[in-house]
Amino acid sequence: MEPKIILGIDPGTNLMGWAILSIERKVLKPLEIGVIELSKVKDPFVKLQRIFEEVCGLIATYHPHELAIEAPFYGKNVQSMLKLGRAQGMAIAAALAHKIPVFEYAPRKVKLSITGRGAASKEQVAIMLQKTVQMVKVPVKWDETDALAVAVCHYYQSQCVAPQSSGPKSWEAFVAQHPHRVG
Amino acid sequence: MEPKIILGIDPGTNLMGWAILSIERKVLKPLEIGVIELSKVKDPFVKLQRIFEEVCGLIATYHPHELAIEAPFYGKNVQSMLKLGRAQGMAIAAALAHKIPVFEYAPRKVKLSITGRGAASKEQVAIMLQKTVQMVKVPVKWDETDALAVAVCHYYQSQCVAPQSSGPKSWEAFVAQHPHRVG
Repeated sequence: MEPKIILGIDPGTNLMGWAILSIERKVLKPLEIGVIELSKVKDPFVKLQRIFEEVCGLIATYHPHELAIEAPFYGKNVQSMLKLGRAQGMAIAAALAHKIPVFEYAPRKVKLSITGRGAASKEQVAIMLQKTVQMVKVPVKWDETDALAVAVCHYYQSQCVAPQSSGPKSWEAFVAQHPHRVG
Repeated sequence: MEPKIILGIDPGTNLMGWAILSIERKVLKPLEIGVIELSKVKDPFVKLQRIFEEVCGLIATYHPHELAIEAPFYGKNVQSMLKLGRAQGMAIAAALAHKIPVFEYAPRKVKLSITGRGAASKEQVAIMLQKTVQMVKVPVKWDETDALAVAVCHYYQSQCVAPQSSGPKSWEAFVAQHPHRVG
């Protein structure tokens, strides 16, 4: 059986964390983790292009089956929310362009899934991750840990068989559940 | 000389207006205008996928050289700004995926460029557009007019020229010349 590959992304406008999680016979192993460095890119469209191209590059290299992305934390500034939405949108579009289903998780849901506590600290999440995955490389940045965490969270969630209350979260799931609605 | 093609987009989460503007020997002609209907799509990722695919479809059909997109108007709700950013991001990503340069204009800039007044009404923009482009189809929705307006605005900006010399230069000039057409 081929390992399942999940691309985890923690979106941001200055740093975008990513993690490639491989799951084979219930063994969780991060193949690679990293960050897309964006703080020095001043032009907003060059920044968006960089995100799109880097995520497309990760998809071309690791062939993930699914994208798990963290939902941005709601701030108070509408301008930065718009920027965050656009940045997150680039990663989502890169996945959609490759027909990869997208799953989004709120930060609280990720923490709850990893540690059992929605209000867990970043340190607690990192420690639990070290216990549950075969870490080959120590994360240097929190963005990397967060990206790995959302990928692991998605693996846990996809293993549960609880009925989806809010409908299918991906195009593939939608097609599978509504074959008559797709031409 | 081949006509220049500009894709204009007025982003939205329920309706996304689009216009294909052709410019040949300084004659502005909308080849097609329309809207992407999104209000009935409840799943957020199906919605984003729909935007990405529809914009990719427009690019494949009309081969635009540039994308001109209207910047979302800043609301007060951070959640809707995030959604708007993601929706706008899909259209931007579709262009970037096809190596098409993206240009963004604030609503006020578009109005100023078309009518000479940043605070112009939608009706004033529509009337000025009717004067400056060879309209082949009457816009049914404001989203179509707005998409055409941002495409025309981008043409003016890239030419650094005022509206066509044969027509009135501004809303004030238009009113002076056509007092009967203005309520």
